[in-house]
Order: sequence, then C-alpha cells, then structure tokens
Amino acid sequence: MEAKIILNCKTYEQATGEKALALAGICQEVADESGAEIIMCPQYADIHRISSELDIPVYGQHIDSIGFGSNTGHVLPESVKDAGAVGCLINHSERRLKLADIEANIKKLRELGMVSVVCTNNINVSRSAAALNPDYVAVEPPELIGSGISVSQAQPEIITGSVAAVKEVNPQVKVLTGAGITTGVDVSKAIELGTQGVLLASGVTKAEDPKAVLKDLVSNI
Amino acid sequence: MEAKIILNCKTYEQATGEKALALAGICQEVADESGAEIIMCPQYADIHRISSELDIPVYGQHIDSIGFGSNTGHVLPESVKDAGAVGCLINHSERRLKLADIEANIKKLRELGMVSVVCTNNINVSRSAAALNPDYVAVEPPELIGSGISVSQAQPEIITGSVAAVKEVNPQVKVLTGAGITTGVDVSKAIELGTQGVLLASGVTKAEDPKAVLKDLVSNI
Amino acid sequence: MEAKIILNCKTYEQATGEKALALAGICQEVADESGAEIIMCPQYADIHRISSELDIPVYGQHIDSIGFGSNTGHVLPESVKDAGAVGCLINHSERRLKLADIEANIKKLRELGMVSVVCTNNINVSRSAAALNPDYVAVEPPELIGSGISVSQAQPEIITGSVAAVKEVNPQVKVLTGAGITTGVDVSKAIELGTQGVLLASGVTKAEDPKAVLKDLVSNI
Amino acid sequence: MEAKIILNCKTYEQATGEKALALAGICQEVADESGAEIIMCPQYADIHRISSELDIPVYGQHIDSIGFGSNTGHVLPESVKDAGAVGCLINHSERRLKLADIEANIKKLRELGMVSVVCTNNINVSRSAAALNPDYVAVEPPELIGSGISVSQAQPEIITGSVAAVKEVNPQVKVLTGAGITTGVDVSKAIELGTQGVLLASGVTKAEDPKAVLKDLVSNI
Repeated sequence: MEAKIILNCKTYEQATGEKALALAGICQEVADESGAEIIMCPQYADIHRISSELDIPVYGQHIDSIGFGSNTGHVLPESVKDAGAVGCLINHSERRLKLADIEANIKKLRELGMVSVVCTNNINVSRSAAALNPDYVAVEPPELIGSGISVSQAQPEIITGSVAAVKEVNPQVKVLTGAGITTGVDVSKAIELGTQGVLLASGVTKAEDPKAVLKDLVSNI
Repeated sequence: MEAKIILNCKTYEQATGEKALALAGICQEVADESGAEIIMCPQYADIHRISSELDIPVYGQHIDSIGFGSNTGHVLPESVKDAGAVGCLINHSERRLKLADIEANIKKLRELGMVSVVCTNNINVSRSAAALNPDYVAVEPPELIGSGISVSQAQPEIITGSVAAVKEVNPQVKVLTGAGITTGVDVSKAIELGTQGVLLASGVTKAEDPKAVLKDLVSNI
Repeated sequence: MEAKIILNCKTYEQATGEKALALAGICQEVADESGAEIIMCPQYADIHRISSELDIPVYGQHIDSIGFGSNTGHVLPESVKDAGAVGCLINHSERRLKLADIEANIKKLRELGMVSVVCTNNINVSRSAAALNPDYVAVEPPELIGSGISVSQAQPEIITGSVAAVKEVNPQVKVLTGAGITTGVDVSKAIELGTQGVLLASGVTKAEDPKAVLKDLVSNI
Repeated sequence: MEAKIILNCKTYEQATGEKALALAGICQEVADESGAEIIMCPQYADIHRISSELDIPVYGQHIDSIGFGSNTGHVLPESVKDAGAVGCLINHSERRLKLADIEANIKKLRELGMVSVVCTNNINVSRSAAALNPDYVAVEPPELIGSGISVSQAQPEIITGSVAAVKEVNPQVKVLTGAGITTGVDVSKAIELGTQGVLLASGVTKAEDPKAVLKDLVSNI
C-alpha cells in the first residue's frame, strides 16, 4: 500500500521558524526509516530554511494569482518555487479562493513543474475542482478540521462520493482524505475508501510526541 | 543630514529569490561605503535567506492580523520576525488593510519589538494613521507609484500637509516620502519637506545599474 | 429561434434609480412588442421598484452566501427574492466569488425557486461551473467585456469550447454568450454557436437610443 | 435630553422585506408619539420601499467606494441615496473596510448630503476614525455586539475614552454608543457618558414586542 502524507504546518507555534525546521527533521527521519512519502507545508518564511537544510519535499500553503510585478505583500508562485517548494496547496478551507484563481493557480503550478493540491469541502465542490485538472483534490469537510474525528470514519460517504465524482469528471485526478486524521488506522481507512493519501495538521503538529504519531500514521503503508 | 532609505522588492523578477539576495548584497555595499541606512523589504520566502547571510536590516512587506493557530496560507507576524525581519510595511497601496487590522498590526509589531511603517495615500489618511501611533507614516499618492515622477516635486503639498497633520495628531510619528523616488535630489527634497527618509521600489530594482542608483540616492545624506 | 436576453445594469448612471425604472419600461415595451424574453438585472436598491411597477422579469446582480442573522451590509438571498427578483447572476467578472460560495449560491437559489446564472471566463472555468449544476453558465472573456467586440465573432472557439465542455460534464446546464454583444447579428451568432441567449450591459445601457438597440437585438429571434 | 436612536436591521428575518416595512412602521409610531429621533438601517433592497411609504429617516448599512460604471454587484452610494437613504453606516464590525475606503466613503457621503456614521471597536480606532472627520463615530466593542450586555455598563471606559480621544482629535465629531443596548437605562447611561445616542440591532429586531422595547428605549429622552 502506498500513500502520500501531507503535513500542513498552518501557523501553529509548534511549526513556526526553528520549530518548523525541527519538525521537518522528525518527518524526514520517519520517512527515511519507513520509506513513506511525507511532505511538509511550512509557512512562506520557513520554506527556504527547510528545503535547503533537509531532503523532505516541501509544498507551499498558498499562492496568489499574480506574476512578477507590483504586488507588494502578495505570494508570488515563482518565489515559493525559488525557495524550494515542489508543490502547493490551493483553496484550503482557511484560505478559500475565487474559482478563476483556482484555475489560474493550477495552470501556473503545472507551468512551474509543481504539484497542485486543491482542497474542497463537499462532493459537488470536489467534482468542480476535478474539472480544472489539478494533480490532487483533498476533501476536507470544514466541520471536522482540527476535530480529531476522522472524516473517513464520521462521513465516509463524502470521501467515496468525492472519489466517484472526481473519477467521473476527470479520471487522472487523484484524491486525498483530509480532516481529523490522527492515526495509522485513519490512513488505512482513507486508502480503502479509494484515496491516495491524507492531508493533516494538528494531529501531528500539536501532538506531545510528533514522532510517535508520525510512526503510527505510516505504520500500515 | 540623516535619512532612512527603504527599498521595497514587491514581486519584481529582479528582486525574487537569488536575485533578491544579490540585490541585498549591493544595498549592503552601498550602505557600508556611505554610512547610509538602507533597509530591504523582500518577499516572505526571501527574508530568512537575506537576513541570515547579510547584515542589512530587513522589513516584511505585510503581515496578517492573526496569531498562532489555524491560519493556513496567512502571514504570521511571529514567522516574519523569526525569519529575521526587524520591521514591516503596513497597508501598502498594493495591499490595503482594514482600519482595525492596521491598528492591530501596529500594536503587534510593537509587542514584537519591530518597526511599523504605515503607508497612506493622502493627508486625511496620514492624519488617521498617525492617530494609531505607528513608528512611521509613508505617504505615497497611488497615481505616482512606479511613475518615475517624484511626489516631492509633483505634489509637495501632500508631503508637507501630511507632515503637518501627523505632527498635530501625534508628534512622535515620523514621516517618509514615497512614490516616484529615483535620485539623490528626490531624497534631499524629501528631507527638506520635513520627512525622515524615502520608500521606493522600481527606481532601484528595475534599474539597469542598481548600485549606481543607490549611490546617487545616498549621495546627499 | 428562441433566446434569452439578460441586461445587466451594473452601476451605470443610465441604469440607476429612476433611470433604471425608465430603462426597464423600455425593455418591457420591446419584450411585449417582439415576444422576446428580456430580463433586467438592476442594482439591489432598484429591484423592488422595478418588480412592483412592471412585469419584466428581474434578476439580482449578486448574492452573498449568508442566511438570516448578523450580516450587516451583506446581500441576503431572501431579501433579493422578497424584493421581487426571480433569478440572480453569480460570479460576474466584476464580482468574482470563491468556489465554495458559488456552490452554496446555486443551491440556495434553487431552494428559493430562483434561476442561477454563473459567469465564467474561459473553457476550463465553464466546465468547472457546470459541474456545480447551475441553470445557466454565461461565458464572458473579461478582455472583451464592454469592448463592443462580440465574443461570438472575436473568440467563437471559447463559446463552442465552453458549450462542448459544459455538455460533457452536465448536459442539463444551458450556456449564454456574454461580452461585447451589441446587435441582432451578435445574438444570431450566439445561437448558432449553441448557446441559449446573451448577457449584455453597456451595449444597451450606454446607447443613445436603448430602444433601437433592443429592437435590433431581438430582431432575429 | 436629546438622543439619536439608530436601528440596524442587519439581515435578520424579522427585519427583511415586508417585515422590515412593518418594523419601520412601528419605529415611526414610537418616534411620532415620543418626539424621539429614530433612524432605521434596512437592507439595500428594502430602502426604497420604506422611504417611499413612511417618513422615518433611513440610513444604508454600507456603501462601496465606487462611482458610476462597471461594478456589477457592488453598492453604489448614489443608488442608496436615490432609493431614499439620508445617511449610512461605514465600517460596521460585520463589514469592516479598508482605511482608504472609509476616508473615501465619508467624503462621498458629505458630497451627497448624507450623514456618515463610522463604527469603531476601541479607543485607538475611534481616534483614527475621528481624524477622517465623519459626522458620527459609533463605538461598538465586537465582543458585546448582540450580547445583551450594555457596553455603557460593562466597559464604560471604552466609551468615555473614545469620547475624549475623538474630542481631542476633532471636536466636531459626535459619538454614539453601540453594542448590547436594550433599555431606556442603557440610553440614559450612553448620554451620561458623553455620547449623542445609540446604535442597536437585536435588542429591538429580535424582541417579542419591538414596540414595547422601543418605547422603553426613548422613555428617558
């Protein structure tokens, strides 16, 4: 069984600056030991530090739909890439985007050779996102984010429904399970439901022992 | 004569990633040779690279009014500080903020020991911003930004009016001149009008020879 | 040949307040004389005035994804309906929405028994919008809006491509042609390309003689 | 004692469409019987209905910083005026605005001969808003909005501090007390603290007997 584990740092204190670098180091250890694919999404200012010191793949948390030019304070896709990111989240529930910007971001990431992961909140939105041809759609019912209640157990029909809808519209798009993932059982269940991996955050970053949680997460892969 | 020169990298190609680092190196050379205070505002992903390799002071281009927590894709003030920034622009014309967020940002930067520079577009807004007690107000009429036409020559009354309004409301707040600054004469004029320095961008970043422009800028300081 | 003509008032002076009511009267005359279906999208504050004094169908220009409650200054779908609107534009290029809000708006309008018209800017976005199951998708390349250059002549492939993409994803969704429509020939061409009507604005509202333009628009229907 | 009572309808079910008209009728009765100044802020689509059928003064809940033109779905100040509004809230806590837009809105309302009421959340923001020279500043600590706990009793120092700060910066600006107002005692207290009236919403709109609440509110004026 193969699965992608994407760890979103959000703006958690335990995943900011030096602590983000330390957490990335733990992720890399677990990835090296287990052979699992663990990806980290740090804050913009931490991307270069992590990608230049470690080998773990790094994704951005967001990019703005802008190009080179007069865009003070915005997040240039090329800047995120130059800092070392090889992919990016798009439309996370905490950073929802306009439809036209999601489309533009997917296109831009492909031009830059980066992986695109569009977050969605229900089956209809998953179908709509898949029509834009991203690499991944990550389904995260907002009410379960940070809840510790796994979507794959609480609302498995959202996952299976999204997988079916995505495949119908665009069979090339892969699906990830998000929201409430904390254990290796959640990961197994996510794979059983037809998805290719998980997107999680607090389950690892806020854990007392992140390494133990990560080891459990990859234990069935 | 003393003056602060703040160089905003925006998302210019000439000031992204490796090129931002190179430009910062040039700024530091000119600062070291002249004794002038030159500050650089790179993109988020470039802050750590520049601040860890060079001694030039670095400011952020923007921060979001958020704290540690679930804020995927947002710009945490503590993250910008941890990466090495010692100050930050607020409310740049390309990243206008809500009034309550400007107030919160100024307060947060002070708590973090960082310098706050609030950008404004006219005399009334300068007065209003000064009432929030930032360290600096930078006056930039939007129509002159990137024009190459210096505000201190085209609309000196906006600068002198802002200085007067700011001093009336809060004498501790210092004023900077922005928009259209490209030469040492512009800097001299900005000082004559009662301001403490300049905020500029394309005049340096898009110049064929940025070092020559920087040397001219500081020539009368 | 049957076709839907939707006239967007935007915030044009010629279509505000009393003038919007007068323009709606002209639309109704032309609709009555020709048997064509002409729909008007006035500003929020003009919906009730027009719908209570005339018989012409009225659509809103936008709704917010909110329900009854504490939402000062937002546009409640129920309020737009109560004022007399029987449909609504969604995601107009001048009021782009987040993907999740487009989905929520379509669902809400259906619950309220109102027609949904989602505006899109290219083939990919049309496909994505169709996956959300609105009544209509209106394709408007932003660069042609207000140009007087008809999309059906300048970029017919965007229209035919959108029709094909929409039908593939969801055959029940109808397509409208927007951007640059000013004449009856544009309307005929829009129908030939497989769409069910047009969405236009300045071509009528800013015309010296709106009635003459409207009569020409419906002349081939 | 004279005092302004501003009733914000928000998007409450009890204050939408026909119900907004009925509530406005009750306000007018109480105003006529008591001689008190009661102002109503309905949703955009209800402004014309109320102002054309009743004599009660009507304010808008928000305007966008736009002029006549291509602004689909936005709120044109001239449209709100044409529908019958004689004033407008600006920067309500549920519709916060950028600093430059608050300034532009105040100026625009003055040009249109309309009253401006800028909502603020603390003393610093009140001072900053006063520097922009609106007619009124309405102080509403967000945590007390809709709480039923009167700011004039829970946090009187925010009101007296705002009055002092506003007077220092601009003695012509009047202050209103918002958040948690439900009784005539709250209104008396608001006046004692140096403000010219109150801004309230749920206390009246969600009351079982709005007329009784309104009569109590104006009982000490």
